[in-house]
Amino acid sequence: MTDARADGRSPEQLRPVTIERGWSAQAEGSALISFGNTKVLCTASFTNGVPRWLTGKGKGWVTAEYAMLPRSTNERMDRESVKGRVGGRTHEISRLVGRSLRAIIDTKALGENTIVIDCDVLQADGGTRTAAITGAYVALADAVAWGREKGFIGKNAKALIDTVSAVSVGIIDGEPMLDLAYTEDVRAETDMNVVVTGRGLFVEVQGTAEGAPFDRRELDALLELALAGNAELARIQTEALAG
Amino acid sequence: MTDARADGRSPEQLRPVTIERGWSAQAEGSALISFGNTKVLCTASFTNGVPRWLTGKGKGWVTAEYAMLPRSTNERMDRESVKGRVGGRTHEISRLVGRSLRAIIDTKALGENTIVIDCDVLQADGGTRTAAITGAYVALADAVAWGREKGFIGKNAKALIDTVSAVSVGIIDGEPMLDLAYTEDVRAETDMNVVVTGRGLFVEVQGTAEGAPFDRRELDALLELALAGNAELARIQTEALAG
Amino acid sequence: MTDARADGRSPEQLRPVTIERGWSAQAEGSALISFGNTKVLCTASFTNGVPRWLTGKGKGWVTAEYAMLPRSTNERMDRESVKGRVGGRTHEISRLVGRSLRAIIDTKALGENTIVIDCDVLQADGGTRTAAITGAYVALADAVAWGREKGFIGKNAKALIDTVSAVSVGIIDGEPMLDLAYTEDVRAETDMNVVVTGRGLFVEVQGTAEGAPFDRRELDALLELALAGNAELARIQTEALAG
Amino acid sequence: MTDARADGRSPEQLRPVTIERGWSAQAEGSALISFGNTKVLCTASFTNGVPRWLTGKGKGWVTAEYAMLPRSTNERMDRESVKGRVGGRTHEISRLVGRSLRAIIDTKALGENTIVIDCDVLQADGGTRTAAITGAYVALADAVAWGREKGFIGKNAKALIDTVSAVSVGIIDGEPMLDLAYTEDVRAETDMNVVVTGRGLFVEVQGTAEGAPFDRRELDALLELALAGNAELARIQTEALAG
Amino acid sequence: MTDARADGRSPEQLRPVTIERGWSAQAEGSALISFGNTKVLCTASFTNGVPRWLTGKGKGWVTAEYAMLPRSTNERMDRESVKGRVGGRTHEISRLVGRSLRAIIDTKALGENTIVIDCDVLQADGGTRTAAITGAYVALADAVAWGREKGFIGKNAKALIDTVSAVSVGIIDGEPMLDLAYTEDVRAETDMNVVVTGRGLFVEVQGTAEGAPFDRRELDALLELALAGNAELARIQTEALAG
Amino acid sequence: MTDARADGRSPEQLRPVTIERGWSAQAEGSALISFGNTKVLCTASFTNGVPRWLTGKGKGWVTAEYAMLPRSTNERMDRESVKGRVGGRTHEISRLVGRSLRAIIDTKALGENTIVIDCDVLQADGGTRTAAITGAYVALADAVAWGREKGFIGKNAKALIDTVSAVSVGIIDGEPMLDLAYTEDVRAETDMNVVVTGRGLFVEVQGTAEGAPFDRRELDALLELALAGNAELARIQTEALAG
Repeated sequence: MTDARADGRSPEQLRPVTIERGWSAQAEGSALISFGNTKVLCTASFTNGVPRWLTGKGKGWVTAEYAMLPRSTNERMDRESVKGRVGGRTHEISRLVGRSLRAIIDTKALGENTIVIDCDVLQADGGTRTAAITGAYVALADAVAWGREKGFIGKNAKALIDTVSAVSVGIIDGEPMLDLAYTEDVRAETDMNVVVTGRGLFVEVQGTAEGAPFDRRELDALLELALAGNAELARIQTEALAG
Repeated sequence: MTDARADGRSPEQLRPVTIERGWSAQAEGSALISFGNTKVLCTASFTNGVPRWLTGKGKGWVTAEYAMLPRSTNERMDRESVKGRVGGRTHEISRLVGRSLRAIIDTKALGENTIVIDCDVLQADGGTRTAAITGAYVALADAVAWGREKGFIGKNAKALIDTVSAVSVGIIDGEPMLDLAYTEDVRAETDMNVVVTGRGLFVEVQGTAEGAPFDRRELDALLELALAGNAELARIQTEALAG
Repeated sequence: MTDARADGRSPEQLRPVTIERGWSAQAEGSALISFGNTKVLCTASFTNGVPRWLTGKGKGWVTAEYAMLPRSTNERMDRESVKGRVGGRTHEISRLVGRSLRAIIDTKALGENTIVIDCDVLQADGGTRTAAITGAYVALADAVAWGREKGFIGKNAKALIDTVSAVSVGIIDGEPMLDLAYTEDVRAETDMNVVVTGRGLFVEVQGTAEGAPFDRRELDALLELALAGNAELARIQTEALAG
Repeated sequence: MTDARADGRSPEQLRPVTIERGWSAQAEGSALISFGNTKVLCTASFTNGVPRWLTGKGKGWVTAEYAMLPRSTNERMDRESVKGRVGGRTHEISRLVGRSLRAIIDTKALGENTIVIDCDVLQADGGTRTAAITGAYVALADAVAWGREKGFIGKNAKALIDTVSAVSVGIIDGEPMLDLAYTEDVRAETDMNVVVTGRGLFVEVQGTAEGAPFDRRELDALLELALAGNAELARIQTEALAG
Repeated sequence: MTDARADGRSPEQLRPVTIERGWSAQAEGSALISFGNTKVLCTASFTNGVPRWLTGKGKGWVTAEYAMLPRSTNERMDRESVKGRVGGRTHEISRLVGRSLRAIIDTKALGENTIVIDCDVLQADGGTRTAAITGAYVALADAVAWGREKGFIGKNAKALIDTVSAVSVGIIDGEPMLDLAYTEDVRAETDMNVVVTGRGLFVEVQGTAEGAPFDRRELDALLELALAGNAELARIQTEALAG
Repeated sequence: MTDARADGRSPEQLRPVTIERGWSAQAEGSALISFGNTKVLCTASFTNGVPRWLTGKGKGWVTAEYAMLPRSTNERMDRESVKGRVGGRTHEISRLVGRSLRAIIDTKALGENTIVIDCDVLQADGGTRTAAITGAYVALADAVAWGREKGFIGKNAKALIDTVSAVSVGIIDGEPMLDLAYTEDVRAETDMNVVVTGRGLFVEVQGTAEGAPFDRRELDALLELALAGNAELARIQTEALAG
């Protein structure tokens, strides 16, 4: 049995999660979400109409972009705008956030509207992609509500068919743990990000052996932890949206 | 005589200015500054050492980068990282912020250290560059203090030789006004950004006739307003740093 | 129970897999691998020495780049060199291939040597990333042998600690299937790529709900199929390397 | 009182200014302008029609691009085309030239026509941006005349509402001076570029403390010098256009 | 008189040339061509319709892109997609291949159709551009046949007005030689690529003095060799297309 | 027999060629060359030292860059710096100019010095690349003289082993013609650029069938014209350098 974690959490415990809904005065939906010291500003931009390649199909579009501020991390990183290219990791996470949100959107019910979610990491301490997905859902839900209020989405159209959240899990010194902070993430032998709907179904499972490959039993343990963590996140989202 | 401004201010009145010093847990200096609804996160990254072209000259280096989050504005803008190039306006403001800070730095006293200031606009409602400069000074001052504490800067080295702040002024319907909000900026015939030190000396004066060219008398009135506004900002900076 | 697949395979059957080892006259290791109509040319380039950031640590480096020829697909795609940027999907797969290979490399045993694996898709019919990983292992193994023969790697240094291969699995019309061809991939509700070592341990598990989210039971069925498929691929790799 | 300047000028004296109007056989308007050794080729390209975002508004568009030949300077600079990006300074000056010209254009009178001004510095010895603006006006005036002659601009439409020119001023060893040559520019404590119309109104005032910040009295002295210098430039422009 | 060449060929002898027509299962025309160890995969992509700038003129368009796999050469080269720009040599050869093919196409007979030829060098041992042109012709011919069969090209329209091939010649140790392999190319004083139609007319002659400039008599000798080599290549192309 | 050419020249006549040697006050060598209305500014930048890859080999380096001003042509072209990439044609010509100059340089005699030639087309009317090469030689010769005077090149080192010039030839309406102007170039069935040394040896021969392919007899006629034209250009260069 290992000792408590650096911040005193038990292995199956989330960091403190807070959601400041409506942080932005301008976006149609927004949330400043914290998973411990990780802080991500999620904004949803609603536009009536769809990209040209979707026009006339009676369907909407949801997409996402993820980025980190240069000094969100411990050492300053160069800006991707200055480097002139978006890095592989950024691309990868943007695509993940977009897919996760589209999994719980009924694009027909959304109608020919576009919602772009921006997830900008203001401070990073591990789990930025999972915080981004979890906060993005709140911003998305508010943007959908805004679109319905403005009459762009039908009154009874159920554009959101479920909720969605994400959490990381990993194996450290042989023990499965929930919601890794940065220093834990660095030490983890295996690292997995799991995106789950409010009903408890998997949207994405991305597990990587950073150190030693993992066996089937370890995989099962991680999946259990992730399902429980996401259930808790779904509760917090619901609370924030009820506020 | 014109009516009061949209937000009820008098022509020579700043918007409410707040400075959350030390907002970032990771940067060596930081400030989240608001000029009304304009919010800019300023972080200062301190590195011992200088770029290669300065090595061995016994001098430090201060530079700045400015950027806007895609949905900091009323309509979402494309990310410059995605476009693959930094736009002209972004470049221009980054250079302005850098020059303004270097004007009050004694690079010899700073020693062979580099401070990079990042000014990221989280929400934009006019005056983002002036808020950036004003907040950047606070982050810079804390980074200098950090460097002194760590022994990278000499104990008695006076690296900061003055304070610096900036404010916009403009002429709307013929009347000079201080600290324009976005809707005012759009209507202004003339728009000027004025960077001033705590001692009341000019660092930058950038006036542009957006509509009709302006005469010498109007220019004088704008300069007076700007000096007064900057004096008030210098007081707020000092208060924040004393806190 | 569903009907047979378009190409007559049973759900748990791989497509015909062939490996032309040593296809390239110039690379230190190479393999032209086919999974049915998917053909990937994998070459390994061995360099004595490591990138600057690794120098002097007594460790080697393995990395990979994946790309598709413009007309490897049914409709011609624009070249990424002409577009001036590497796309998100390309980045993502390059990173996946690299991580998969590093999982079975002992970088200390490799010594200060670098191996770059290029996986170029000559023809694409689904499963290009899994074929790439499977072929890359063969090229890598030959490059390691080359390095040992030339004296760059110690005679008894066990640089390769296991074998590695990958296969896709998915759920189509509710039924789990192994090694999806392109037309199957398009129809799959869930798509998963699973990278496994010769000992049957997981290196990567990447499952995505393209249509409906999936439950725990479905996930288990897919993992079983993938383990069996990878065991078969490991056998084919061993045969090719023995040839 | 300081000594004469390196080239023997008095502090309030321009360098010799020459304008070769119609230098280019192909452009609709052109001028090769010299401020001493600074030589800028300005060409105006007239197109009937406007960019898409302006179509149907009954207004024209004037824009400018500034660039330097790689060996216009004392040491060869890399080409921006080869570097793959336009630098901040280039962007900034292009925008300044464009704004300066638009200040004296009545876009309604211009009608739905576009004029692009290119200012290419063939030889640089300080004041390239001010020479560019001053020469650009001449090229612009000829392009407008060309458009009127061809019937694209109405016969009585007064598209040009004033003339415009620019000059630099600066403080060297405490003394305000007009039209700085490169070696003077380098020594200046304060450097200001002032764009003025033929009627003596300000279009742009851009003052920067390169060394010590400047006070109100110094600013006033610089503005006086600049107004006088621009009056002289307006006279030279008029002469060139009368030729 | 010099000795035989490294591979035993006489000066006027081609390397073994093979053409695997229809190598790609997906392209409308394709050929894997070898000139000795040089291997180039040529694919032709047929699209009904033309680029916007050609629309409505009743003419078709043929263009080509050339590229090398990173490890087609003896030492691995960086990918141009990763560098973010297509190099000068690549551009130059792409343009050469395109021009060579257009010389034997009657664009009116082709009708409003576009054929893009991709020539990807899988293995390089000198003469990649000449192999590319020679193989591209075969892919092009099959794509034209495909277009005719599908009814996009008129039944009696003679879109191909001749055949085309290319070969390199050079002077080594004073002796003119045909079809240089890489090690010969490096030693050649003069290097020439000659593109010739089946009727023996010149399409391109590109001769470069790598070492000493060459005189008229040498030029004549090279042209003779090239004409003979191309006649042989035309025979091989015809055979491949008859197969 | 055809009529005289548009400008009254006979088929074997050059346009008026003028060379303003030493046009630039800053470059170590320079020439503003005109071939009729084609005007190219050639500057040579001399640097003591060589690029890293050449260091310590006792050899120098000569390279060239060619570019066109945006309004050097009849219709304005976009700047390559703004497009963010150098086009294929620009690359191709830059490489051609560099190779042509290196053919007459003895890099050992040049010593470890670098000369960069910039050829910027100020006005284009056909033959810009041939004018560039011809003018570049003059700038190069002066830069070599400068380097010798400064002591960077040995007193008796014969760095220039010959002169070099270039001219275009083409077939119009079946008749071979020398030095094509733009309107002739457009009509030419065959277009050839021929670079020749002062001794009458070929450095580059680049012939392209723009319309119908050409036969051996036509090729011979073009080569004769080009040799004669280059002999005349060599005379003009010598005169300019004697001036």
